Amino acid sequence: MAKIISVNAGSSSLKFQLFEMPSEEVLTSGIVEKIGFEDAMFTIKVNGEKIKKTLPIPDHTKAVALLLEALVEYKIVESLDEIVGAGHRAVHGGEIFKESVPVTDEVVEQFTSLNDLAPLHNPAGLIGYNAFKENLPNCKHVFVFDTAFHQTMPKESYIYPLPMEYYENYKVRRYGFHGTSHKYVSLRCAELMNKNIEDTKIITCHLGNGASITAVDGGKSVNTSMGFTPLAGVMMGTRCGDIDPAIVTYLMKKTGMTPDEMDDVMNKKSGMLGVSGISSDARDIEDACKAGNPAAILTTEVYVNRVINVVGGYYAQLGGADAIVFTGGIGENDTNMRKLICARLEKAFGVKLNQELNATSRGKEVLLSTEDSNIQVWLIPTNEELMIARDTYRLMNA
Amino acid sequence: MAKIISVNAGSSSLKFQLFEMPSEEVLTSGIVEKIGFEDAMFTIKVNGEKIKKTLPIPDHTKAVALLLEALVEYKIVESLDEIVGAGHRAVHGGEIFKESVPVTDEVVEQFTSLNDLAPLHNPAGLIGYNAFKENLPNCKHVFVFDTAFHQTMPKESYIYPLPMEYYENYKVRRYGFHGTSHKYVSLRCAELMNKNIEDTKIITCHLGNGASITAVDGGKSVNTSMGFTPLAGVMMGTRCGDIDPAIVTYLMKKTGMTPDEMDDVMNKKSGMLGVSGISSDARDIEDACKAGNPAAILTTEVYVNRVINVVGGYYAQLGGADAIVFTGGIGENDTNMRKLICARLEKAFGVKLNQELNATSRGKEVLLSTEDSNIQVWLIPTNEELMIARDTYRLMNA
Repeated sequence: MAKIISVNAGSSSLKFQLFEMPSEEVLTSGIVEKIGFEDAMFTIKVNGEKIKKTLPIPDHTKAVALLLEALVEYKIVESLDEIVGAGHRAVHGGEIFKESVPVTDEVVEQFTSLNDLAPLHNPAGLIGYNAFKENLPNCKHVFVFDTAFHQTMPKESYIYPLPMEYYENYKVRRYGFHGTSHKYVSLRCAELMNKNIEDTKIITCHLGNGASITAVDGGKSVNTSMGFTPLAGVMMGTRCGDIDPAIVTYLMKKTGMTPDEMDDVMNKKSGMLGVSGISSDARDIEDACKAGNPAAILTTEVYVNRVINVVGGYYAQLGGADAIVFTGGIGENDTNMRKLICARLEKAFGVKLNQELNATSRGKEVLLSTEDSNIQVWLIPTNEELMIARDTYRLMNA
Repeated sequence: MAKIISVNAGSSSLKFQLFEMPSEEVLTSGIVEKIGFEDAMFTIKVNGEKIKKTLPIPDHTKAVALLLEALVEYKIVESLDEIVGAGHRAVHGGEIFKESVPVTDEVVEQFTSLNDLAPLHNPAGLIGYNAFKENLPNCKHVFVFDTAFHQTMPKESYIYPLPMEYYENYKVRRYGFHGTSHKYVSLRCAELMNKNIEDTKIITCHLGNGASITAVDGGKSVNTSMGFTPLAGVMMGTRCGDIDPAIVTYLMKKTGMTPDEMDDVMNKKSGMLGVSGISSDARDIEDACKAGNPAAILTTEVYVNRVINVVGGYYAQLGGADAIVFTGGIGENDTNMRKLICARLEKAFGVKLNQELNATSRGKEVLLSTEDSNIQVWLIPTNEELMIARDTYRLMNA
């Protein structure tokens, strides 16, 4: 028995979930938001109830101290010594980290050397780690990377058709993200299908505010739609995904935008928000569609078009597929988007959705396809926190 | 009976082919190269033999005068009055030209307004037109656009997930190119299959130094891999095709390249040349592969990966496919590339190649697949010149 805390630190936030391992029981979860502000917010679940506090929290170290005190105060743990492991979401592992690792000084150094590839995310991950290390000096720490699951991709998938010097000198290649999620749902899907993961071909669609699709062959990522950065691939809430790269330089020349301004447009003003002019939130787009808004309808059509093109491509690359998995905020909850996507896959691949089941299924594990569907369609809520706790527990005992 | 000349003018070159219509007999063909130079070259086919001359040719008007004189001199025509129509390849028709049009002053004005979208190609097309107009004042002229065939694409295919203002203000959308080629081979494929084009779903792969793939549904383009510019889509000789758009800004920031310099890298130093470091020519890559060169092997693997991903995507969007067509320099002649592509499509789509026939087929119409292949695979040499002549003849008589 061991208590393991799973941590996802952002630049001004910190999400956590405390597990009893190996039973995988969730003891509590919560989030600290607006760290560094006078009106920071701390939320923690106690006996199924959310307790919320607003107070000044100057930094991550104080945020961690606060949440650890709360664990004792609310009797979730008797003593902080019970927390023997902390797993930290570390976004970018580059080509160095092909799997989760126990944190050492060398690991911290290597991880820091990748800051350039994830200038917002990697430093935040490190701040989270340092805050826990200070507060829980005897706890073992593990880094779990968003990119690690995709390190199994073959070169044909990760090398861009650019001069090779950019790969060699600047590490420009496809990395892929959401790896912990794609790994979790593909493993879970194999379990639910009663198959060995080695014998499965699964296309996992993590569709949230960020979105990526992965071709998983025998449990290994062989291609994924995000690329060098999380901007690439399908259309997202505010990100454009793949576009003709000549548009980037064309618009810079036309408008005088700097590279940073252009990045900002592609990352924050594009996607669903850009096409609809309404919102980056799929729920708002759906409401507007129902009201007959043409821009919202177009947004949905473009979204579906891009998803089915990637799914079709991965079907080709995998040489078929046993299952398609929907996860992420949209994948788990947007019944209409799932319906539209699957309808477009019916003729080509014989995907058949149980319409009634699909229309009523949100946020729980469900086989959405009919028995005679050529490909099983699964709704599987992702659980990155659990994957992080599992890897941490495994590596502590390795 | 009418003699129609089909013209493809570049900034320093002019290709032509003279047809007898409606029989479609080719009376002659040729090319003027290095226009504007002291050592310009004029080549014309007479009775199956190539006649070559090197001489100073100051401009396109002189180039056209020269080729017209040659037509009389070599008795290909008795009088230039016999040439009643000239069809001009006009690269970018924007959203204005959805099909070929007889050239009027208004058309010239509209066409010129699109220069911004094709700064190299559209002015060259106009120079070619003007040169013929001056030399053949009584001839009827028709513009045939590379983009026109793709104007049937639905919005879901041509709208990018960018802020809509860039579409509205700067016309940034997917246009697609090689349209005359995709149209020709898809029509020809339906004929060869003895099917009405309306009843066919065809994926046309124009793989040359430039390369694009089109999903053709009932004779209409519904998606194509090139985009706002001919840079997008699959990997090409020197073009990168689709990459994470964030790479563009990242490399500009890292290296200090201007947008024009970055365009240059993506258009002229990437693709097969960039990955292999050897050559932009698929024949050189194949030779190097045979010699075991790892960079050449990787180049081929990346190339195939990108083709099968697009083909798979279009199979999904079309809801299946009756045929895949290979055309263009690589599509028509690179037997090994066809073999590798089709091998990767076998498991997913039941594509079966007649290996012997594929290995020996170059530059002629051949059904490359076996009888039990789920999708027919055709080799169909493209013939943009004939399409241009056909449209010209049709519009002259309309």
